[in-house]
Amino acid sequence: MNRKSILMCPGPSEVHPEVILAMAKPLVSHVDPSFFALLDRLQDQLKTIFQTKNTCMLLPGTGTSGMEASLINFLDPGDKVLVGIIGHFGERIRIIAERIGCEVKVVSAPEGNALDPNDVENAIKGFSPKLFACVHAETSTGVLQPLKDIMDICKKYEVLTLVDTVASLGGVNVPVDELGIDIVYSGSQKCLGCPPGVAPISFSPRAESVLESLKPRNYYLDLRLIKKYWLERVYHHTPPVNLFYACNKGFDLIIEEGLINRFERHRKIGLALQKGLEVMGFKFVAQRDVQNPVVTAIYLPPEIEDVKLRKILLEEFGIEIALGIAQLKGKIARFGTMAESARPQNVLYLLSALENILKRFGIFKESGVDVASSIL
Amino acid sequence: MNRKSILMCPGPSEVHPEVILAMAKPLVSHVDPSFFALLDRLQDQLKTIFQTKNTCMLLPGTGTSGMEASLINFLDPGDKVLVGIIGHFGERIRIIAERIGCEVKVVSAPEGNALDPNDVENAIKGFSPKLFACVHAETSTGVLQPLKDIMDICKKYEVLTLVDTVASLGGVNVPVDELGIDIVYSGSQKCLGCPPGVAPISFSPRAESVLESLKPRNYYLDLRLIKKYWLERVYHHTPPVNLFYACNKGFDLIIEEGLINRFERHRKIGLALQKGLEVMGFKFVAQRDVQNPVVTAIYLPPEIEDVKLRKILLEEFGIEIALGIAQLKGKIARFGTMAESARPQNVLYLLSALENILKRFGIFKESGVDVASSIL
Repeated sequence: MNRKSILMCPGPSEVHPEVILAMAKPLVSHVDPSFFALLDRLQDQLKTIFQTKNTCMLLPGTGTSGMEASLINFLDPGDKVLVGIIGHFGERIRIIAERIGCEVKVVSAPEGNALDPNDVENAIKGFSPKLFACVHAETSTGVLQPLKDIMDICKKYEVLTLVDTVASLGGVNVPVDELGIDIVYSGSQKCLGCPPGVAPISFSPRAESVLESLKPRNYYLDLRLIKKYWLERVYHHTPPVNLFYACNKGFDLIIEEGLINRFERHRKIGLALQKGLEVMGFKFVAQRDVQNPVVTAIYLPPEIEDVKLRKILLEEFGIEIALGIAQLKGKIARFGTMAESARPQNVLYLLSALENILKRFGIFKESGVDVASSIL
Repeated sequence: MNRKSILMCPGPSEVHPEVILAMAKPLVSHVDPSFFALLDRLQDQLKTIFQTKNTCMLLPGTGTSGMEASLINFLDPGDKVLVGIIGHFGERIRIIAERIGCEVKVVSAPEGNALDPNDVENAIKGFSPKLFACVHAETSTGVLQPLKDIMDICKKYEVLTLVDTVASLGGVNVPVDELGIDIVYSGSQKCLGCPPGVAPISFSPRAESVLESLKPRNYYLDLRLIKKYWLERVYHHTPPVNLFYACNKGFDLIIEEGLINRFERHRKIGLALQKGLEVMGFKFVAQRDVQNPVVTAIYLPPEIEDVKLRKILLEEFGIEIALGIAQLKGKIARFGTMAESARPQNVLYLLSALENILKRFGIFKESGVDVASSIL
């Protein structure tokens, strides 16, 4: 099958051709003056995108490398960590913190809900953690965690904050300084619209003083050494040069579009998809008030087996979607409307493909294309 | 300066245009059936290149991620590790092993020399390490460590073996199974001729049983989880899909050329460069009998400051070289003749540029171009 499939899964997302082509720029070495200039530009771009004055860098790894770096560089064995878990990726934070040897307490929410700030406050009061970590956009459920109240509570109790923005940065507002997030990371391949393999990270002066005080127990993701490379040009590793070219171009496109315009585009596209799905009779995993515009998870009717749906969409329509993970495995389908995937034609095509499939299974009720179209 | 510079540093090396263009293939997701098929092909290619039947994978990080993964997945705090150090990268192995909390003993050699097998045997006898680690091609000095005797000694004492082949795999013979290496890793951007950002790794059934018995203390580079993704398709991370496309093409080119032909090309090109430099009066950091053909390190005469040489070569000739690191900083220049950089035109151009510079500094003796040319 030689057809180019359309990525409507929650990452990787469609990448602009100019970003792909940027990778083909002539390779220079990691100590070439022109590459050092690129590192400076990337830092400026990241500060714009993270909306922060804090230190920003790109890690030579995927989103999960950002997660591990954000924990292992700021935590010692025995440190108390409060983890907010509303799905698979919060669970992953817990696993990593436990592997470090931290004392971990969990605050969670029922399936499809965001964390309740009161629960977070109560957990902090009784536990006095050094760090609170949560996921902004939980890709496994489509829930977008409201951050303001929780971050305010952490500030009140002087708890260090860590937020995973892998599935939100570049598509949903993440005003790092305004929210007072200490440590934040993302992945290149979702709303940032770049190829996978790079993890943007940013940390506050407060986090930095913790970093400097810790005995290093890792090396590849040692933020002290990586920062020395980015700021003082002291060799630590050979970065994925071509991926950095791609990020530079991808970030340019984000800044040219404008953050506000870009968030509005993602909001509208997500809304159109969700209204369409609703009219068609699908139920959502996420509660309406915390529904992420860029990740939509729907429960599947008993007539449609998840792997069958995925196969039909991929093989017959050339659309790539994702299914449920962990406890949601077998029950749901997940769609991503991120970066270049968040375009009207993709949403309408996905909805009409789903309609076609519902008809085939004899469970078609009403078309969602019209309502989606009216929003787009 | 818009000129494309020629990479004659010991990594990254010049990448074939077809490998660069392979990155621009349409992006698929990390769970797409066509991507799983690619993972299978990559494993077969790696088995050919590592000359092994052992498990082979690509790690989502640079060569240093391979180094850390090779240590952290097989060692517990308190484990005894013998590290052979003949330069900067052996030193880095020591640092990582110490950060894990291992009891580390070092066996070393004078500058420019390889490890003496007798020293290794004596160190093993008195220390009984769980693992012996060394660097095959030490990029900081240009020494190529002969492996056979040392690996035989490790086998005799049943010591697990770990070899860094970042600067040798694909350019110099690394017969993993024949040598009985348990754990071996490399980097994509040197003799393998691919863009930086990916670390090939391979480990034996014996290493695998150690891996399975260890309590995991890391996550991103957890080889158990990465192996589950490669072999059982259980999600762990979103790999750098485009870099994997590039590796697939780059590995194809290696296999098409043939390992023996490729080693011979690197041998001849390195010899030509080294004979040319010798005639011109340069002294080498590495002893003649352990000189790596793909990395050449020369002492600079007092008249030529290293950073000045680097600047002239880059700005006037468009040639990128590397200088000394750690204790060799300020004293040497290093050249790489790896992958697509290992072509006759590059060697002759580098030699004639160096001649031009020697003349400028009034210390030209004899041309090295003719002797190099006669070898090429």
